[in-house]
Amino acid sequence: MHPSPRTVGIVIFENVEVLDFAGPFEVFSVARPVDVHDDAQRLFRPVTLGRTPDVIRAVGGLQVKPDHTLADHPPLDIVVMPGGWGTRALRRQPDVLAWLKAQSAGAEIVASVCTGALVLAEAQLLDGLTATTYWDNVAMLRAEYPQVTVRDDVRFVDNGQIVTSAGVSAGIDMSLHLVARLHGDDVAAWTARRMEYSHWP
Amino acid sequence: MHPSPRTVGIVIFENVEVLDFAGPFEVFSVARPVDVHDDAQRLFRPVTLGRTPDVIRAVGGLQVKPDHTLADHPPLDIVVMPGGWGTRALRRQPDVLAWLKAQSAGAEIVASVCTGALVLAEAQLLDGLTATTYWDNVAMLRAEYPQVTVRDDVRFVDNGQIVTSAGVSAGIDMSLHLVARLHGDDVAAWTARRMEYSHWP
Repeated sequence: MHPSPRTVGIVIFENVEVLDFAGPFEVFSVARPVDVHDDAQRLFRPVTLGRTPDVIRAVGGLQVKPDHTLADHPPLDIVVMPGGWGTRALRRQPDVLAWLKAQSAGAEIVASVCTGALVLAEAQLLDGLTATTYWDNVAMLRAEYPQVTVRDDVRFVDNGQIVTSAGVSAGIDMSLHLVARLHGDDVAAWTARRMEYSHWP
Repeated sequence: MHPSPRTVGIVIFENVEVLDFAGPFEVFSVARPVDVHDDAQRLFRPVTLGRTPDVIRAVGGLQVKPDHTLADHPPLDIVVMPGGWGTRALRRQPDVLAWLKAQSAGAEIVASVCTGALVLAEAQLLDGLTATTYWDNVAMLRAEYPQVTVRDDVRFVDNGQIVTSAGVSAGIDMSLHLVARLHGDDVAAWTARRMEYSHWP
């Protein structure tokens, strides 16, 4: 018997940046114990969550159908909030902010990629913490959320339960970091190898 | 007036690897002239192509709805064939192989990511050329297609019209290379910057 995989809920929405959600999805989808390919031993179960069951259009037009909705989904061990243009609207949606706050009461990890940090900040999940975001939105995060200490020189910041990453492709590095934190450096290295991600140390 | 963007047709299918198609989609989606963010000046228009209009399930379960079908789509300047477990079935589908051969008569570039190279090889598009593929399938490509010279030490191989990349995340590097080839190194560097892809030289 293998232990149950952690369920990773990745939020998707209109104008979510493609790699912001697809990078973490890929990492969590392929993570396995060292030298294992077998799906029965996968370490995570990524699922996508929409505000509604409808197909969303990501930046560039990619059409993705959510597996579940924010109102009806399995219990989540890890929540991933990607970024993209759509976060400008998303962080004004009370249902999304309330959902994030509720998740933060139970989830092991709540993580953002790119401008997903603005949504976490609006939900007050970054208060008093250190965070990072997309390089072009660092000034905005600093100006609008002065209670957050913003770094602009790292791929990700790990506060324990709350983790944020820099933009787009940095979500891959943050997700590999979480694999390393939860399952060890060797498992993260093997996961990077499975993705032929030669940029992981 | 800006020149028309090149249309990039990315094939998706059951058990396509997520990052194999999402990496190139992201690169071609965000490519712009240097210092430009404006969508009106985008350099490429990525679209997804399915064998049918139905939602497909990628590896890990991600649900993606194709924009068009192989039987009905706009003219393509660039074709991208991703890899994943699903290529084992895909390269046995005569309609897919015939479509690839037909595209190779007109498209400026036909590119593969990961085990997508096996599909290109089966369609005889790699005959007499040098190619690469996912590290775990290098031996298989060599054994089954001895008319192809297979390299296992590069992120991508550019033969001009036919381009192949190594596995999964290497599709990002190959796509940035194509941006550089078609629009110059500065545009590729700016595209990598827009993706916060610090691994691009």
